[in-house]
Amino acid sequence: MTSFHFTLHKTDGLARLGTLHTAHGAVQTPTFMPVGTAATVKAMAPDDILATGAEMILGNTYHLMLRPTAERIDRLGGLHTFMGWSRPILTDSGGYQVMSLSALRRIEESGVTFRSHIDGSEHVLTPERAVEIQRLLGSDVTMVLDECPPFGVSEDEHAASMRRSMRWAERCRAAWTPRDGYGLFGIVQGGTFPDLRAESAAALQAIGFEGYAIGGLAVGEDAATMLSTTESTTAHLPADRPRYLMGVGKPDQLVGAVLRGIDMFDCVLPTRSGRTGQAFTRHGTLNLRNACHVDDTSPLDADCRCLACSNFTRAYLSHLTRTGEILGAMLLTRHNITFYEDVMAELRTAIAAGNAAAWSETFLARYRETPR
Amino acid sequence: MTSFHFTLHKTDGLARLGTLHTAHGAVQTPTFMPVGTAATVKAMAPDDILATGAEMILGNTYHLMLRPTAERIDRLGGLHTFMGWSRPILTDSGGYQVMSLSALRRIEESGVTFRSHIDGSEHVLTPERAVEIQRLLGSDVTMVLDECPPFGVSEDEHAASMRRSMRWAERCRAAWTPRDGYGLFGIVQGGTFPDLRAESAAALQAIGFEGYAIGGLAVGEDAATMLSTTESTTAHLPADRPRYLMGVGKPDQLVGAVLRGIDMFDCVLPTRSGRTGQAFTRHGTLNLRNACHVDDTSPLDADCRCLACSNFTRAYLSHLTRTGEILGAMLLTRHNITFYEDVMAELRTAIAAGNAAAWSETFLARYRETPR
Repeated sequence: MTSFHFTLHKTDGLARLGTLHTAHGAVQTPTFMPVGTAATVKAMAPDDILATGAEMILGNTYHLMLRPTAERIDRLGGLHTFMGWSRPILTDSGGYQVMSLSALRRIEESGVTFRSHIDGSEHVLTPERAVEIQRLLGSDVTMVLDECPPFGVSEDEHAASMRRSMRWAERCRAAWTPRDGYGLFGIVQGGTFPDLRAESAAALQAIGFEGYAIGGLAVGEDAATMLSTTESTTAHLPADRPRYLMGVGKPDQLVGAVLRGIDMFDCVLPTRSGRTGQAFTRHGTLNLRNACHVDDTSPLDADCRCLACSNFTRAYLSHLTRTGEILGAMLLTRHNITFYEDVMAELRTAIAAGNAAAWSETFLARYRETPR
Repeated sequence: MTSFHFTLHKTDGLARLGTLHTAHGAVQTPTFMPVGTAATVKAMAPDDILATGAEMILGNTYHLMLRPTAERIDRLGGLHTFMGWSRPILTDSGGYQVMSLSALRRIEESGVTFRSHIDGSEHVLTPERAVEIQRLLGSDVTMVLDECPPFGVSEDEHAASMRRSMRWAERCRAAWTPRDGYGLFGIVQGGTFPDLRAESAAALQAIGFEGYAIGGLAVGEDAATMLSTTESTTAHLPADRPRYLMGVGKPDQLVGAVLRGIDMFDCVLPTRSGRTGQAFTRHGTLNLRNACHVDDTSPLDADCRCLACSNFTRAYLSHLTRTGEILGAMLLTRHNITFYEDVMAELRTAIAAGNAAAWSETFLARYRETPR
């Protein structure tokens, strides 16, 4: 069994080319992890995910602990076996969804008590339980339980919340059982306050983790602030560990974050948008519901290799979207994930060649064209 | 271009082994046509359909004339090109859906006036327009417009309706433009009254069609009556033309109908059931919502070659169904269609070997076992 580790092959400015080694194989970074909330990347079979170029997916502890429960998944052989995905899986800790989805939550030093958004049942998530759930799931990367304050709270509230998250991180580390090939990531909090981010990054490194995530961004701040906070935070993170920007984002934001030293991403945007008729392309975003597409025989993106772009017209994709057909969600999800993975692959090639900044400038100019 | 024709290779009792030749290729019969209502077999990409073994699909004139309209599909290159399906397509005439789905319909000698179930707009469907729409779609097999009376109306009402359908069939034939590789099918009506069925079959043959369908069954009569009506009707149909039993049915009904001389089937059951968690297997039907499946690590059907049975457990399929995940619909639809196509393939093999009756007895005994 390979031990869990990260190899940094090359840097180009702040951008990094690396490989993350896990129990379920290697992942080339920068990488984008499609979100597989409830043990499925919505509208995709595992082979469909592989065909996009994705090497690692994300699972949501919150959803899985409620249905079908971590104990059931463990009995059934773990999350990889359960969902038929043999490559690496990262799971979040459930903290973010508890804050955003559940009802009647109560946050205390011990942990979070909440009611399920599905049936109203009461559940408790502590740092120790979050680590246990992710062990039962068999996640290659376990995330520490943290609190993600809503956008706009004061610096004092951010400081208090971040410091509690750091105490939770320490409890997660203590609850962790080391296993060959598996890793635990800490999460830097502190809102958009550089001093708090620096304090959080230092606190996590004092504990020591196999990787470091930046949490609490893309929650309402503007894109420039998100990127500047990312850059000021990565400056405080060790070079030899992977860096994961949680929940980000749009294609241009991913490119900007890679240029600022990020290695890993996840976001529901490409999957969720695929189910509502929005497509991301090299020429910007398209809404397939718009009337301009109903007679358009061109592909979604002439430069894309995915099933949707190789075999179907915008007119057909528009028809599927307008009639609410499942195939529309299937094809647009495949396209969007393929596009995200292609952006990552092109960035890796550019970093290897030492021209990440130039590639990004060309990409962004084209991406920000008027959608057509 | 191959001319449209049917080759009868062998009979075994009343069961028939044949090949239907069309503009878009050959179809081995008996065959089951998955229903692709709105230019998509729901939850399946064209390659997924091919993988099931299906060689021909059905499209619904009613849905397509409303969205995206026959004229738009024609402008976009026809239904095959539009939906990326290069094999044969049969379209119904729209008559059945007008009766079952639309609002405020008015049936007159000239045709049917109805309001769309989508937006309430008024439309007229005449025999001539039904043929024109199917020509615009580019269907390999066009069905005549007919009236399908509800179950339970009197023999006199059935007689009057059937005779009007025969006059409409004659108008469809007159409106038909012969094209190499394309065919027009008549539809036998007459409810469960053998004399009316015989009269209808004779009337259609006097007009002359490339194939003959049996309509108006599986609308509420019991299974035995459905099969006996099928048998008494096929006795009046010419041996050298394909016979299509419309809208039937469950796997055991298909087997019974093949033994009574039917060559072609369509039904929404395998696709629709797949979206609600019902699976058809060699051991009967299963409802994946049932609690007995949540910890079951066995495949849906150990003898099935489909993606769902090769890669996933009943526990996982149950989870997907219970959480309403699109992948559940995708996998169960693939399984159900694969099962239907495998039943057809095994029947073809049995007919070729001259043991269709024995194969059917074994199949039905196993199929009618208590589901497990």
